[in-house]
Amino acid sequence: MSAIETRRQIVEAADKLFYENGFVATSFADIAKSVGLSRGNFYYHFKTKDEILGAVIDLRLANTQAMLDAWQEAASPAERIRGFIDILIVNRVQIMKHGCPVGTLANELAKLDHVALRDSARVFALFRGWLGRQFIALGRESDADELALHVLMRSQGIATLAAAFRDETFIRREVEDMKDWVAAQIPSRKSR
Amino acid sequence: MSAIETRRQIVEAADKLFYENGFVATSFADIAKSVGLSRGNFYYHFKTKDEILGAVIDLRLANTQAMLDAWQEAASPAERIRGFIDILIVNRVQIMKHGCPVGTLANELAKLDHVALRDSARVFALFRGWLGRQFIALGRESDADELALHVLMRSQGIATLAAAFRDETFIRREVEDMKDWVAAQIPSRKSR
Repeated sequence: MSAIETRRQIVEAADKLFYENGFVATSFADIAKSVGLSRGNFYYHFKTKDEILGAVIDLRLANTQAMLDAWQEAASPAERIRGFIDILIVNRVQIMKHGCPVGTLANELAKLDHVALRDSARVFALFRGWLGRQFIALGRESDADELALHVLMRSQGIATLAAAFRDETFIRREVEDMKDWVAAQIPSRKSR
Repeated sequence: MSAIETRRQIVEAADKLFYENGFVATSFADIAKSVGLSRGNFYYHFKTKDEILGAVIDLRLANTQAMLDAWQEAASPAERIRGFIDILIVNRVQIMKHGCPVGTLANELAKLDHVALRDSARVFALFRGWLGRQFIALGRESDADELALHVLMRSQGIATLAAAFRDETFIRREVEDMKDWVAAQIPSRKSR
């Protein structure tokens, strides 16, 4: 296996462990073990857990950007926003177990007052910018960013309570409620 | 100092450390150190971190119940709900640093698949029941629990994004928006 491929495997394993068990709860040794590498081989790629964290955040940024690019295919801005909201349904089993990967990492890093908090918030910022552009396309230029943050806020609230109560009915109800809210934000067309 | 007083000091120190640094990030030794106890004296009170966690959750349940009881003094159910929402403003500095104590602990315990997750969710359940009773008093018998969960959900979403972006303007705007939403839920009085 090439060095690049090994590095990729480490970062993907760390991404999964940080999400499923938490950043603090995941040790350097846990990650090495999950990819079946010797300590020596592992250290060749990463010297500290913080270095791995940086690579995990970069991976999440790239994956998020790719997902947003793919969503641009959707027919309309409103449909794209609904696609974002539907992540809560698509990933509901994982969310009920581990919360939202972005929100829970940010919370952990905030508590640690970790320098990477800013970088982790860039994943939120990608969603925020993208959602804002959809609201602009829907004719809400003046408050697009506020609306984008409102959608992110609700998604985070749903994910946290979903993990606390492990209640799928709650997720589905709030997802519908959020879609109704989005529909109500679209200015009615005066002409046509 | 009496044994009961020492125990109380340990639990309060753990409550603060679990909130500020996280449950996983806080070691048994950190707690002993913060109350200035020898290991022997400390072990007399608690044998494991999970035992301390149980006591911290009990303390949070008692504190939450006392707060809810105090809020019953407020003039009207709508005012009581606004009082709940205003926690986000009152505690904004702490929330921007460490998130919400209830939500972040639940997220940590969910990831650990910890048996205490259920107990930690009881703090949410206290708020949920209390908020539900306020919505019933406002004439929303049929969907009081859904409305209560919606308020909790928004509070959690605001707390998570507040910790990620550390943006007070965002908190204040969403708090106003949530209060407007609550006002819109109150059925207009047809008669008197």
